[in-house]
Amino acid sequence: MEYRNPDAVARMRADFARQGAMASMGIAVADVAPGRCVLEMPFNADFSQHHGFMHAGVITSGMDSACGFAAFTLMEAEAEVLTVEFKCNFMAPAKGKRFRFEGDVVKSGRTLTFTEGRAVALAGERETVVATITATMMAVRGLKP
Amino acid sequence: MEYRNPDAVARMRADFARQGAMASMGIAVADVAPGRCVLEMPFNADFSQHHGFMHAGVITSGMDSACGFAAFTLMEAEAEVLTVEFKCNFMAPAKGKRFRFEGDVVKSGRTLTFTEGRAVALAGERETVVATITATMMAVRGLKP
Amino acid sequence: MEYRNPDAVARMRADFARQGAMASMGIAVADVAPGRCVLEMPFNADFSQHHGFMHAGVITSGMDSACGFAAFTLMEAEAEVLTVEFKCNFMAPAKGKRFRFEGDVVKSGRTLTFTEGRAVALAGERETVVATITATMMAVRGLKP
Amino acid sequence: MEYRNPDAVARMRADFARQGAMASMGIAVADVAPGRCVLEMPFNADFSQHHGFMHAGVITSGMDSACGFAAFTLMEAEAEVLTVEFKCNFMAPAKGKRFRFEGDVVKSGRTLTFTEGRAVALAGERETVVATITATMMAVRGLKP
Repeated sequence: MEYRNPDAVARMRADFARQGAMASMGIAVADVAPGRCVLEMPFNADFSQHHGFMHAGVITSGMDSACGFAAFTLMEAEAEVLTVEFKCNFMAPAKGKRFRFEGDVVKSGRTLTFTEGRAVALAGERETVVATITATMMAVRGLKP
Repeated sequence: MEYRNPDAVARMRADFARQGAMASMGIAVADVAPGRCVLEMPFNADFSQHHGFMHAGVITSGMDSACGFAAFTLMEAEAEVLTVEFKCNFMAPAKGKRFRFEGDVVKSGRTLTFTEGRAVALAGERETVVATITATMMAVRGLKP
Repeated sequence: MEYRNPDAVARMRADFARQGAMASMGIAVADVAPGRCVLEMPFNADFSQHHGFMHAGVITSGMDSACGFAAFTLMEAEAEVLTVEFKCNFMAPAKGKRFRFEGDVVKSGRTLTFTEGRAVALAGERETVVATITATMMAVRGLKP
Repeated sequence: MEYRNPDAVARMRADFARQGAMASMGIAVADVAPGRCVLEMPFNADFSQHHGFMHAGVITSGMDSACGFAAFTLMEAEAEVLTVEFKCNFMAPAKGKRFRFEGDVVKSGRTLTFTEGRAVALAGERETVVATITATMMAVRGLKP
């Protein structure tokens, strides 16, 4: 896959920086490539559920952003990205020292982009996939906040 | 539907209170009934995405918790609830003064509970459904954090 | 909801009649209204799974068609409808004398239409929801087979 | 992954042979391995939608069966498999001479098994992924038809 827009990564990082949610949750960009985005987050008890694991919605926030920005890297300069829908499976409790969120474009179209991703819990040497996502993203033009 | 456990609401509220994520996002319990849970959240720029709307993952956090606690109200005293999977659709940008998250049990089984829910944006008199969820919850026993 | 196209029902029924799958499975149109389509099917052992219930994929075929045609009733005259994605939950074994598939539009946009539906097993007086679907449909123009 | 039951493949093939739906649609077993099942189907106009492509529900039938039997290969001798839920994305029109349905186990638990799969259209040398699925399967004991 290739960037369609030379400023794709710069635009993506600028948009990421404007997401209050990512900053509040402590999620940061780890890697970007055409059609791929990887985010990382340290464990944070402020975003736990009641057994002390990370909340499924927080894990989803990381996976959704990774997929949305993966899609965004392949969009044209004037397009914005919105999430149409996603489906998440939770295979294991989200416990770990850190979490990595990977998003990959499966198919990029003019309007719709299909993506998939996963959340990986990191604890020492051990990596555990705790959740997976498939997400459909839409390129929108002329979006007004 | 009826509670299977006389302490269901007290247990549910205690578990809710232990969720770091709900407190951090400003999500509170608005209503509980057998097989139903309603949560509410004021708009919070700390949890926005880059167009200033609430982040899809935050909207999902509210819907997931509403559905999980709706399922929990019908579980036996020794059971804990975990999210197996969910699917969310985002119909409209999540803009509003407040958000209401409704979760309802569709079918409650011994192991699995099917739920559905929605996120409603409130702005003055206007209510807009901005997202829907279907979620499968699992009753687990002997869960160790 | 209202038809955007005076020939919507006639076009929908003509398209339905061209679906080899619906004829082969014995699925027929029971009711059409703006943003709604109801199909019906008698139990058919030729489309069972190995416990003798209707196959989940066949139940899905009925729900997908009901949702797709519900979306189609609200589309413009030159548009065709394609399924982008769907999510199905199976709450009960699909056993019954007949099955009813209901599809309803939740939100109709120019490009994307959000729908939801269900499959109901009928046996004498008893009606049981055996499955639910949420489906995203896309209006496409200039589609070539 | 390893079979937990020495008769897993024989049981799987016997159950497959009892599925009326697979025979009617012309879907056959191409390959089985622990945690994996591959099915194949020639194009069949009897199961088309109205543009002449294979119906999304039929493509789903193949993917669901591939995933269900992949899960079944890892189950204990007394367990039966039922589909709890699935999510399917349709990336490209299902046109081709033949279709291959691949199902793989992602995580196998005592009660729930997470699977993923895809439908590949074959036309001469060309292979196109036309759809993907994530499906949750449940092991049930003592199921009565």
